[in-house]
Amino acid sequence: MTTRFQHGILFTDQYQLTMSQVYYRLGLHERPALFDHYFRAYPNYGAHAAGYAVAAGMQPLLEWMDTARFGEGEIGALSTMKGRTGQSLFDNDFLGWLRKYGDLRNLTIRAIPEGRVVHHTVPMTIVEGPLVLAQILETPLLNMLNFSTLIATKAARVRESAGDGLFLEFGLRRAQGWGANLATRAALIGGADTSSNVGAALDMGVQPSGTHAHSLVQTAMALGMGELGAFEAYAEAYPDDTLLLVDTINTLESGVPNAIKVFEKLRRQGHKPVGIRLDSGDLAYLSIQSAKMLNSAGFPDVAIVLSNNLDELVIWQILTQIRAEAPRYGLEADAVIKRLVFGVGTHLVTSWGEPALGGVYKLVSLFDRDTWKPAIKLSENPQKTPTPGRKAAWRVYDSRGRASADVLTLDDEHPQQSEALNLYHPTDAGKQRTLTPADHTIEALYTTVLDSGRRVVDVPDLAELRERRVRDLARLDPGVLRLVNPHIYHVSLSQRLWELKQNLIKEMRKG
Amino acid sequence: MTTRFQHGILFTDQYQLTMSQVYYRLGLHERPALFDHYFRAYPNYGAHAAGYAVAAGMQPLLEWMDTARFGEGEIGALSTMKGRTGQSLFDNDFLGWLRKYGDLRNLTIRAIPEGRVVHHTVPMTIVEGPLVLAQILETPLLNMLNFSTLIATKAARVRESAGDGLFLEFGLRRAQGWGANLATRAALIGGADTSSNVGAALDMGVQPSGTHAHSLVQTAMALGMGELGAFEAYAEAYPDDTLLLVDTINTLESGVPNAIKVFEKLRRQGHKPVGIRLDSGDLAYLSIQSAKMLNSAGFPDVAIVLSNNLDELVIWQILTQIRAEAPRYGLEADAVIKRLVFGVGTHLVTSWGEPALGGVYKLVSLFDRDTWKPAIKLSENPQKTPTPGRKAAWRVYDSRGRASADVLTLDDEHPQQSEALNLYHPTDAGKQRTLTPADHTIEALYTTVLDSGRRVVDVPDLAELRERRVRDLARLDPGVLRLVNPHIYHVSLSQRLWELKQNLIKEMRKG
Repeated sequence: MTTRFQHGILFTDQYQLTMSQVYYRLGLHERPALFDHYFRAYPNYGAHAAGYAVAAGMQPLLEWMDTARFGEGEIGALSTMKGRTGQSLFDNDFLGWLRKYGDLRNLTIRAIPEGRVVHHTVPMTIVEGPLVLAQILETPLLNMLNFSTLIATKAARVRESAGDGLFLEFGLRRAQGWGANLATRAALIGGADTSSNVGAALDMGVQPSGTHAHSLVQTAMALGMGELGAFEAYAEAYPDDTLLLVDTINTLESGVPNAIKVFEKLRRQGHKPVGIRLDSGDLAYLSIQSAKMLNSAGFPDVAIVLSNNLDELVIWQILTQIRAEAPRYGLEADAVIKRLVFGVGTHLVTSWGEPALGGVYKLVSLFDRDTWKPAIKLSENPQKTPTPGRKAAWRVYDSRGRASADVLTLDDEHPQQSEALNLYHPTDAGKQRTLTPADHTIEALYTTVLDSGRRVVDVPDLAELRERRVRDLARLDPGVLRLVNPHIYHVSLSQRLWELKQNLIKEMRKG
Repeated sequence: MTTRFQHGILFTDQYQLTMSQVYYRLGLHERPALFDHYFRAYPNYGAHAAGYAVAAGMQPLLEWMDTARFGEGEIGALSTMKGRTGQSLFDNDFLGWLRKYGDLRNLTIRAIPEGRVVHHTVPMTIVEGPLVLAQILETPLLNMLNFSTLIATKAARVRESAGDGLFLEFGLRRAQGWGANLATRAALIGGADTSSNVGAALDMGVQPSGTHAHSLVQTAMALGMGELGAFEAYAEAYPDDTLLLVDTINTLESGVPNAIKVFEKLRRQGHKPVGIRLDSGDLAYLSIQSAKMLNSAGFPDVAIVLSNNLDELVIWQILTQIRAEAPRYGLEADAVIKRLVFGVGTHLVTSWGEPALGGVYKLVSLFDRDTWKPAIKLSENPQKTPTPGRKAAWRVYDSRGRASADVLTLDDEHPQQSEALNLYHPTDAGKQRTLTPADHTIEALYTTVLDSGRRVVDVPDLAELRERRVRDLARLDPGVLRLVNPHIYHVSLSQRLWELKQNLIKEMRKG
């Protein structure tokens, strides 16, 4: 095994290359084509589903495109591939073209910017350019944008569920090889405050987070120092950053009392202890009991970090349980909740329950005889038939500033604030509605990120990406934000686009 | 965003580094330590669970260890990290030690070889060496071995379910960034014949697989060539490798008839068509009807490739349905099944239903005053308490050559073929049994793969890794192989190990 080819331009599917050679033979390889990237359904985590998604992954994709090339090694490898009768699969003339012109930077990409809320069936990304290049880009684009969007969406849900609590991404050990780094990046965009993944956190410009594992306590115990000895050693090394994992032996009988002893010593020395971490057991009950013990010892502010298979629903349940239970133990629930920190790992970086986003990449238009010709693919399920043509997308906000629908139009339509807006349901002809100018404001959704190879937007920093998410989520209807059984966000077509789609479907059915 | 640190030695959790500094302060950083890597439960995919797992990921881990270093960049980044009062988190003396001695190749690794069947609670991997290095390795080891084993296991299940049918891994577009390449590698070890992932397949020495997508047909249609025109263009480019995707318009009314026209032309030209691919609809029904049409046209041998959210249960159901239905249409079921090829994507590379393997890495022994001292961590759930000590693992085969149990012993125990073998249930004192010498044969499971930095086994090639899997699966009980509700494989302890564990638990409970 080597890792010679797997990070370069051959990080794509074989059929992109075999199809490309057919296009080359037909003289279609440089024909301008337009592909839409979109998902049909939000992640559905089994018992619950998302009502929105958060776009992510564009920057890593652009960085890969900057370096992916058909170099001599790649061309050499392709030239050795054989068909079943022993003949070369790829001809020299096609390979020669790839070597000379197979540069993905010659594409144009428009997209809803990373960090923004995106919805079902609305293209997140539109790729335009030579047919062969747009085709080869399909696989890496889907890989990076689908996965990043999946994880950013899960992180946004955890962020919503965790309220103001600090939220740490802890998933590296259960993530998917190098995919872990893309997961960390997406989690940070989606709402994680920082990550345990040292390299990826540093690369994103945040300080990684982490204190100690059970093994520190085990080591101390094997050497006769006991749990208290481990805690003391930790506190000595990090007197102003002491956060202790208290469940190696017994949380309430050993861990918390030992932590309090160490905290008292730190206080005497003029240091402020940071907190404890609970990693097993009933986290709601243990949070309350630990808080009570810490309060009695005069540490009402130290943090309680929770970890162990957390996700947005588990966090929600823990907070609900604390709200109900804390008063019974004489504690103010909000004071307990305020000190909680959430470490979320496996369920975040794998998007547990729905470990892939079904984003697709569909040919919607092809340039032919001086004009863009719409392309369509039928499906027995009308909801799976892509909306054809070169399109624009708009977000409509109601008079309260809430996003009420995304609208797809033909790209030469420019819905004006001053005009009434007719909205058509994508598949159900009976469903139409009209918005009067006073009812709404409208926003164009696409930004050009790559213009025939020229990067036309600056690399956004993490703060900006997060701001976009926060701004968009604040403008969603609470029903769409709901963690379980969310309201389905409206996506509509303009009248002209609706008619184009119906006409194409009719034509194709006729054969 | 950069990708400066995320592929190097900082592909680890922050707490490994903060803990390491504590060890350094205590003078324990070079203390020999022993960690076991194992999983407690096989993947459970929701409605069904695995009865075994297939080890994978060691070779990529070793390759990473060869290059991972605390270079100037890493040390510089760590030296800028601050605690909450602004002081440096890591001291120069600790960082200096890391820079000079922080070389993971100084570790020793014993493991059950890649490709072999592995079972719950039996350490797959044992890491021995300086405490700090073994600790830093924890995260990358878990990341690469857990994910690889997860995917190899899923692939092995698909392989079992698909019988003799060709099995192609198609998951790149729904995989997790660069994690896709590790998934492809593991899928090939687990039983996929090849993959659509061009780079990873080439790196593994197999030719990638793929023909064309719906977009080829859409392009031809938008240009007025129709589906038939697309098929003809494909056949012209690959006359001896023509495999056509037939569901863009309508499988039985358009796709298959058009494919047959093209196949007839190829036949007249002296070429042998390869097959068709079905990517939507009722794949069992469409397989039967397509086979019937292909048979009538004199193509009883061309392949029928199935894709669209396949997994081991869907394949099983399709085969069952074909067995029941094919005779009703006058076809021999086995003849239909024999021509099937399975393209498995999303559900394979994400291990849908259980997207992470819960592999853990636990300190089990520490060197102290000239002797290895066992370490333990209690848990309220006795099944989660790791088995302490330096151990060996053995596989016991019954008189038919079937694997009947894995047995853990202390590493100075050498169960002899000539002796009776007493087996203890890991947690239930009442469960014991004795095997007489005539009853069983016994095999040592661990191989040393890294000896204080020296690679002591050759890099295995793919054929060898696959052979190991095939050999091990053939020796499993059919009940353990079952796709749903498998029999739970026995894992036992020797008497001495069982007593050691019980004594340590008692001691620790006393405090």
